[in-house]
Amino acid sequence: MPKVGIVMGSDSDMKTMSKAADMLEKLGVEYEMTVISAHRMPDVFFDYAKSAEEKDFKVIIAGAGMAAHLPGMCAAIFPLPVIGVPLSSKNLDGVDALYSIVQMPPGIPVATVAIDGAANAGILAAKILSVSNPELLERLKEYSKEMKDAVSKKAEKLDQVGYKRYIEEM
Amino acid sequence: MPKVGIVMGSDSDMKTMSKAADMLEKLGVEYEMTVISAHRMPDVFFDYAKSAEEKDFKVIIAGAGMAAHLPGMCAAIFPLPVIGVPLSSKNLDGVDALYSIVQMPPGIPVATVAIDGAANAGILAAKILSVSNPELLERLKEYSKEMKDAVSKKAEKLDQVGYKRYIEEM
Amino acid sequence: MPKVGIVMGSDSDMKTMSKAADMLEKLGVEYEMTVISAHRMPDVFFDYAKSAEEKDFKVIIAGAGMAAHLPGMCAAIFPLPVIGVPLSSKNLDGVDALYSIVQMPPGIPVATVAIDGAANAGILAAKILSVSNPELLERLKEYSKEMKDAVSKKAEKLDQVGYKRYIEEM
Amino acid sequence: MPKVGIVMGSDSDMKTMSKAADMLEKLGVEYEMTVISAHRMPDVFFDYAKSAEEKDFKVIIAGAGMAAHLPGMCAAIFPLPVIGVPLSSKNLDGVDALYSIVQMPPGIPVATVAIDGAANAGILAAKILSVSNPELLERLKEYSKEMKDAVSKKAEKLDQVGYKRYIEEM
Amino acid sequence: MPKVGIVMGSDSDMKTMSKAADMLEKLGVEYEMTVISAHRMPDVFFDYAKSAEEKDFKVIIAGAGMAAHLPGMCAAIFPLPVIGVPLSSKNLDGVDALYSIVQMPPGIPVATVAIDGAANAGILAAKILSVSNPELLERLKEYSKEMKDAVSKKAEKLDQVGYKRYIEEM
Amino acid sequence: MPKVGIVMGSDSDMKTMSKAADMLEKLGVEYEMTVISAHRMPDVFFDYAKSAEEKDFKVIIAGAGMAAHLPGMCAAIFPLPVIGVPLSSKNLDGVDALYSIVQMPPGIPVATVAIDGAANAGILAAKILSVSNPELLERLKEYSKEMKDAVSKKAEKLDQVGYKRYIEEM
Amino acid sequence: MPKVGIVMGSDSDMKTMSKAADMLEKLGVEYEMTVISAHRMPDVFFDYAKSAEEKDFKVIIAGAGMAAHLPGMCAAIFPLPVIGVPLSSKNLDGVDALYSIVQMPPGIPVATVAIDGAANAGILAAKILSVSNPELLERLKEYSKEMKDAVSKKAEKLDQVGYKRYIEEM
Amino acid sequence: MPKVGIVMGSDSDMKTMSKAADMLEKLGVEYEMTVISAHRMPDVFFDYAKSAEEKDFKVIIAGAGMAAHLPGMCAAIFPLPVIGVPLSSKNLDGVDALYSIVQMPPGIPVATVAIDGAANAGILAAKILSVSNPELLERLKEYSKEMKDAVSKKAEKLDQVGYKRYIEEM
Repeated sequence: MPKVGIVMGSDSDMKTMSKAADMLEKLGVEYEMTVISAHRMPDVFFDYAKSAEEKDFKVIIAGAGMAAHLPGMCAAIFPLPVIGVPLSSKNLDGVDALYSIVQMPPGIPVATVAIDGAANAGILAAKILSVSNPELLERLKEYSKEMKDAVSKKAEKLDQVGYKRYIEEM
Repeated sequence: MPKVGIVMGSDSDMKTMSKAADMLEKLGVEYEMTVISAHRMPDVFFDYAKSAEEKDFKVIIAGAGMAAHLPGMCAAIFPLPVIGVPLSSKNLDGVDALYSIVQMPPGIPVATVAIDGAANAGILAAKILSVSNPELLERLKEYSKEMKDAVSKKAEKLDQVGYKRYIEEM
Repeated sequence: MPKVGIVMGSDSDMKTMSKAADMLEKLGVEYEMTVISAHRMPDVFFDYAKSAEEKDFKVIIAGAGMAAHLPGMCAAIFPLPVIGVPLSSKNLDGVDALYSIVQMPPGIPVATVAIDGAANAGILAAKILSVSNPELLERLKEYSKEMKDAVSKKAEKLDQVGYKRYIEEM
Repeated sequence: MPKVGIVMGSDSDMKTMSKAADMLEKLGVEYEMTVISAHRMPDVFFDYAKSAEEKDFKVIIAGAGMAAHLPGMCAAIFPLPVIGVPLSSKNLDGVDALYSIVQMPPGIPVATVAIDGAANAGILAAKILSVSNPELLERLKEYSKEMKDAVSKKAEKLDQVGYKRYIEEM
Repeated sequence: MPKVGIVMGSDSDMKTMSKAADMLEKLGVEYEMTVISAHRMPDVFFDYAKSAEEKDFKVIIAGAGMAAHLPGMCAAIFPLPVIGVPLSSKNLDGVDALYSIVQMPPGIPVATVAIDGAANAGILAAKILSVSNPELLERLKEYSKEMKDAVSKKAEKLDQVGYKRYIEEM
Repeated sequence: MPKVGIVMGSDSDMKTMSKAADMLEKLGVEYEMTVISAHRMPDVFFDYAKSAEEKDFKVIIAGAGMAAHLPGMCAAIFPLPVIGVPLSSKNLDGVDALYSIVQMPPGIPVATVAIDGAANAGILAAKILSVSNPELLERLKEYSKEMKDAVSKKAEKLDQVGYKRYIEEM
Repeated sequence: MPKVGIVMGSDSDMKTMSKAADMLEKLGVEYEMTVISAHRMPDVFFDYAKSAEEKDFKVIIAGAGMAAHLPGMCAAIFPLPVIGVPLSSKNLDGVDALYSIVQMPPGIPVATVAIDGAANAGILAAKILSVSNPELLERLKEYSKEMKDAVSKKAEKLDQVGYKRYIEEM
Repeated sequence: MPKVGIVMGSDSDMKTMSKAADMLEKLGVEYEMTVISAHRMPDVFFDYAKSAEEKDFKVIIAGAGMAAHLPGMCAAIFPLPVIGVPLSSKNLDGVDALYSIVQMPPGIPVATVAIDGAANAGILAAKILSVSNPELLERLKEYSKEMKDAVSKKAEKLDQVGYKRYIEEM
């Protein structure tokens, strides 16, 4: 069965990156999450990226902060879609990671999502798989409906109680 | 047959966005390109985004500059993957468009590529389709090989003629 | 009676956006506040924006963070003035929202106020209505006088107690 | 009859700012354009801003580059809506002017449009006046339709001739 | 006797701006501190700036955040040196105020110091007065010596106790 | 007689920095201009900064681009006011120089003017000298009047010929 | 024996800069750490930089925040490699220091590391010395292996316990 | 004999990167320049970085634009010093490359020079080698003297002819 690989350079990224896994679980997509530093273990990283296709990975989600080479280097080796998640760190609010991930040169795209946007990376991976998986597409549409309903309920509550009480109860 | 939609908000974006079409042609992927402004013709835009799935679009590539709402609004309506191309304009070097496209809220990802990176959007669309299309994946791998060979030839030439002559002949 | 619509994409924006409502109440301007996500419920959003004119909305105040498409999409549909409030979020200090709101293409202006400047959005809406409402203009002038008097009092106190005691008593 | 004031700090801003006047002419709105530097002639500026209301100005459009105090100082004195146009100059792409205009403190809003967005300032001024002028609102809607038709024609042409010929003929 | 005016737009700026007063006291320079908002009380502000010369102000230190027009408007009216202190606020780290203060157009300079650099504004005011006041210049040199000695002592301590203990004792 | 020193790190800065000299000439202030690189000739630079006071320099104007240490190092040695002019270079629009000049640590202010704002540096130097030179202050006021008259003439012309002809004749 | 000099402008930088010393200790490289302000004690600084070579310093690591002239001025005087560490301060996240350190003019390089990247400065200094010291190079390789093993262990743990428990135990 | 490797990702970088080679030639340092894309030919790149040490490379200078992974990936594999040159490209002025190169995570430093600062990369490489090569250090000092003399001559000329004629003759 097709799988999504989730990879990050450091376990300090796990709290944020776990949102991608949560989303894939919710959508019923199989995944494998691991920690591999392209900088600290380039050999291990190379093996990972090279063997990903034959391990039936169809999409890789790579999260990284600061210089953030992991997503781009995955995309250089793995032939299928790579999704990059720029992670914010102590300084620069993740702009460094955003530029390092999104500004890929011609030929090697990384599908970049928002800074710290790991949940969206999970959804995007599912959308990519849903191109040939109508059932998954159905689940994605249900999820969209859930999101819509959640906002609708909030709008209704606001309508009923007014913003002052709404804010108090937040 | 699955198709890629290429859409842009203004024909002034066509020179850049045509690189996506060129790439899809090269890779043998069917596409349809059009000009629709989410701001100037919201109804037309809505119809486009809503009917895209039944017209067998599997991926939409949306390019936009400045406030750049087109890709995100596509992603709000079209359930399959949307690729966003931030376009540079007179001021701000496309950072405005980059932020408007990549910083999508949870639930609605846009797969963002580099500023003016339309060629990469084409490649990414092909990669997404190649998840369930081994032939297309093969063509993508061939294209990667071509790119590699092109650089190798340049490296060889540099080795032979030295950088001074290389630069003169550029 | 003319009304101001206040709309935001998420209830997490309500604390900030409520400042617009507070200001309109203070100035005696009728308003309706709701939560509608242009991304999560585009149909609902479209209906909202399309029916706003016949519901006698004369101005819409739209607040949004990150990619912040809500104000611009309102302006694409609602023919009367739209005021946009860029909201700061976890990263980027609201610069993403500012660019997404203010950098609208020719033809579709959004009257943008400061990042998190919801109170000013309320005042601006009132100023717009006061163009044809001399009484409201009078109330706006009184409010200006109040603001002036508040600063004058602070200046007097500083004059009397000196800055050291002033700071202690803050 | 209600008028729109257009003011800029230097005649070097006139080429850009004239787009606001062009738009107002097109929409049939009366305006007066002048050059007043808040920095070089603060007295003249004060008289201008103070007498604007009694001269029947209902909106002021103020364009400025760099430190760009003109719009904010207008808003400090003139009680009705002020629209600010940040102008790009030699360095910084107009970000300096954008921040100087949009980041107004609580109490004194400036309705800010895009960098160099003078045409949109003209449209926004007309929208503000149209709140109490149904005829003008009608003209604005017609203008929106014109914009939509212009894009539709481009989309049709693209459909007919293909992007390669379209680009050649640009 | 020559005086330095210290002015700020809001009493929320006082904690930072008081550092300028502290420094002037330390250096034996007379000053007057007040709170005047150029935006909320433009008339009062104009009177202040216009009468400053005859009240024997020789330098004005103006601190402001966000759109930060106060220093530039002082410089437009007061003919002697104006020092601007950009103040950081909730968003943007004071970059908005820095641009609004430093990017003055030709003809109207503001002597800008670092973001939140009120102490340096006090020193700069004293340096300006010391051009014609050898005694004050002497005090400034003594202050420089004090600063130097303070660092020297720290260097000596580091030399003696090593960095580990030094950090513990911080 | 009191003099202003004008110093820059490279003769490539001279075209911009000469505007400071032009202004000082216009205002009748004596100056000495030279080229000294704090980076390439630190000894020469130290001698320059150390001997400046006894050579009767009362103000130093230092212009520099990129890392731009010259103004700050002048301020570290020369006890009287130092004015810094951030110069734009090939990349970054002078933001690098602006930060390097304006963000001085407590104790060592540099009076920073706009990016490439050498003319304003000249005016600021004259303003500083005018604190104890009423005649120079008079000349500065005349110059302000000239600037005001120049804008007034432009406003009159615009009034007479309209903006279309005004622009044509530019 | 060759030594590394570690210098910073203020003892408030010591907590961050001590990471460079920690790293050099770990790698068995001799160093001397001191506090010298190029701005507050330029003479002491000059002596330090000038005598560094004869005191057998082979590399200097200089850390500084804000205008951050210390590394560049070291590089102007000390002929051997200078490593610059941009330090973040209250505002601007260290971008000011980064630009002030990295944007050195032609002829005077500073080897710049990440914002607050003092540990990396220590490693880089060791790498520079290891060019002619095979034993040190061996220690560096061992350190690389340690880093790799540390990540591998984390990956194994993640594999065993899953991300939910991993995060709980963090 | 020790060598410096110069590597860039694309031959479009050669014009800028050749300045590093020019400088090394001038200083008598052996080097090898090549073109290798870490993204387009990761295998070739890995071989290059892995074999560099045994080919007697003591320093690698890596130049790259946009996402700019080349220098960081060299540093992940090659144990000796890596110098990174951020290259400006069509948009963003090289800030993307600067962040991608300088913001390396702990453990893997890249010695970063200014945007487009290839000449300084050459000098820095020579300085690194000069730690154990007194002759090369001597040549570096001579080069410093040349630079100093060049500025001195310019200062003398300015002194003799005045700035007006100096500028004319530029």
